[in-house]
Amino acid sequence: MILVVSLNPALDVTHHVAGVDWSGVNRPQQVGTAPGGKGLNVARTLHALGAAVQVVGLAGGVTGEAVAAGLAAAGVAGAFAPIAGQTRRTFAVVDTNSHDTALFNEPGPAVTAGEYHEFLVLYENSLAGCDAVVLSGSLPPGLPEESYAGLAARAAAAAVPVVLDAGGAALRRGVAAGPAIAKPNLAELQGAVRRPLVGLAAVAAAAAELRAAGAHAVVVSLGGEGLLAVTGEGTWHAAPPAQVAGNPTGAGDAVVAGLAHGLVLGTPWADRLRHAAALGTACVAAPAAGQFAEADYQRALAGIQVTEWAGR
Amino acid sequence: MILVVSLNPALDVTHHVAGVDWSGVNRPQQVGTAPGGKGLNVARTLHALGAAVQVVGLAGGVTGEAVAAGLAAAGVAGAFAPIAGQTRRTFAVVDTNSHDTALFNEPGPAVTAGEYHEFLVLYENSLAGCDAVVLSGSLPPGLPEESYAGLAARAAAAAVPVVLDAGGAALRRGVAAGPAIAKPNLAELQGAVRRPLVGLAAVAAAAAELRAAGAHAVVVSLGGEGLLAVTGEGTWHAAPPAQVAGNPTGAGDAVVAGLAHGLVLGTPWADRLRHAAALGTACVAAPAAGQFAEADYQRALAGIQVTEWAGR
Repeated sequence: MILVVSLNPALDVTHHVAGVDWSGVNRPQQVGTAPGGKGLNVARTLHALGAAVQVVGLAGGVTGEAVAAGLAAAGVAGAFAPIAGQTRRTFAVVDTNSHDTALFNEPGPAVTAGEYHEFLVLYENSLAGCDAVVLSGSLPPGLPEESYAGLAARAAAAAVPVVLDAGGAALRRGVAAGPAIAKPNLAELQGAVRRPLVGLAAVAAAAAELRAAGAHAVVVSLGGEGLLAVTGEGTWHAAPPAQVAGNPTGAGDAVVAGLAHGLVLGTPWADRLRHAAALGTACVAAPAAGQFAEADYQRALAGIQVTEWAGR
Repeated sequence: MILVVSLNPALDVTHHVAGVDWSGVNRPQQVGTAPGGKGLNVARTLHALGAAVQVVGLAGGVTGEAVAAGLAAAGVAGAFAPIAGQTRRTFAVVDTNSHDTALFNEPGPAVTAGEYHEFLVLYENSLAGCDAVVLSGSLPPGLPEESYAGLAARAAAAAVPVVLDAGGAALRRGVAAGPAIAKPNLAELQGAVRRPLVGLAAVAAAAAELRAAGAHAVVVSLGGEGLLAVTGEGTWHAAPPAQVAGNPTGAGDAVVAGLAHGLVLGTPWADRLRHAAALGTACVAAPAAGQFAEADYQRALAGIQVTEWAGR
């Protein structure tokens, strides 16, 4: 079973409007509501892959209830420690004429030390018997930046491997706790090594620094340039076939799901990377984060070029 | 006690953003959530005036829970018949740089005949001992356009006077049920008589037609031109002192609250109209619908010119 941590989930609300009047009254012809946030996207993709998955997190207010209910309706097991604050919303306005999307991300609710302690009890109880833990997404206000490092250390004590998808201080500190895989994107990797990275060789060198700092493997997501994995067994580059039109939101989450899935199955790195890259590509073509069509996945899988990289 | 009917309430979500990126990611610096919809605005204004008020309506889903909780937190008594659908949201994006506001009004949830029957039981039970009923706002999908006429007839049977604020067929049919006061705006009045109305004399003539069709009094809200009341005791025009800068959303609801308040107090028409117009003006100056500052109300009250109209 893969345990997915979601400390700052969201209720994603999407309005589809044909020709938005940005200074007037609009009547959306389609309204969507779904549980969101990076962790929940990862969990839904894992569930769609047939993996046993459980979410643990923090949720509060009627938006928190909606997130928990939506996750249950999607067939994903979840347990949330209650918080007094209200789980955040994200609001997307999709103009179906211009194809522009405006996103409004509310700040997360403040979490108290007592509430986080309740979560930790839930997390510790869920760790036993897990095959992997995914730590993904932003920390809500009130939680210290070493929170992911603490969760990774508890997983290590329980001999459960960790996949870490975070940026900033949470990435730097989390890497020191020895995750099996860290998955920064290019901007997050640049932030971690505090310098611009131009070209695959520079990316590989920076990823190797995160390995030296504690991560067993580092997979860097590079958008249209695919994935670069720097591991103890070698360095691989997975290049997608061509630019895919669609919504890149959540593509990184699909990659994380693929990496965690490959990790628990023990898939060799070249195949694990191909699987993760194909999920990311298929996710871009899907209408909503956390979803993909099997045909898109199969097409991407066939088109992705994985090369063991000479520069390791 | 004034009973306010809210068949299609809303959860109003407002994001304040400095310089909106309409095709990118925004992080609102201020997020507001409040119970909304015309009926609830009327109820909050009545509550602020010190009137005893109770809301009855229909609500469902977590948004419905949020509406009920927000109303209770505002100190307004409310009872909602449950519906399987989800109470709608309205979403406002206020650009604090340009002062543009974009509004996104979700469609209301479909209401079944059985759910409406539950509401009718609640309504009938609440009617006993009421001093007035306010019927205000749009009907949710699934309810027939004669719904307000039916509610007005039940109020008449219980000898409770009705204030009706509706447009379209709900106004035409509701007027026939003999409300004490109908409060259309200019567009709604034009729709009811099916012709354009230019000038106060034309408005007064059309209002007299609604009286002939059954309404005891008709008060037309004319935006910056104030209110025109055509009643059995005479015709009055209330002219606001000058254009007030601010948010006109909910100004009509404040006028309805003032009219209902004056109705139950038995205030003479000239004073009743001045009170209602001052509340509408003060509401424009307030940051949110259903609110007003007493100083704004007092200033408006002093500045409004009420004239008995020769053209009656």
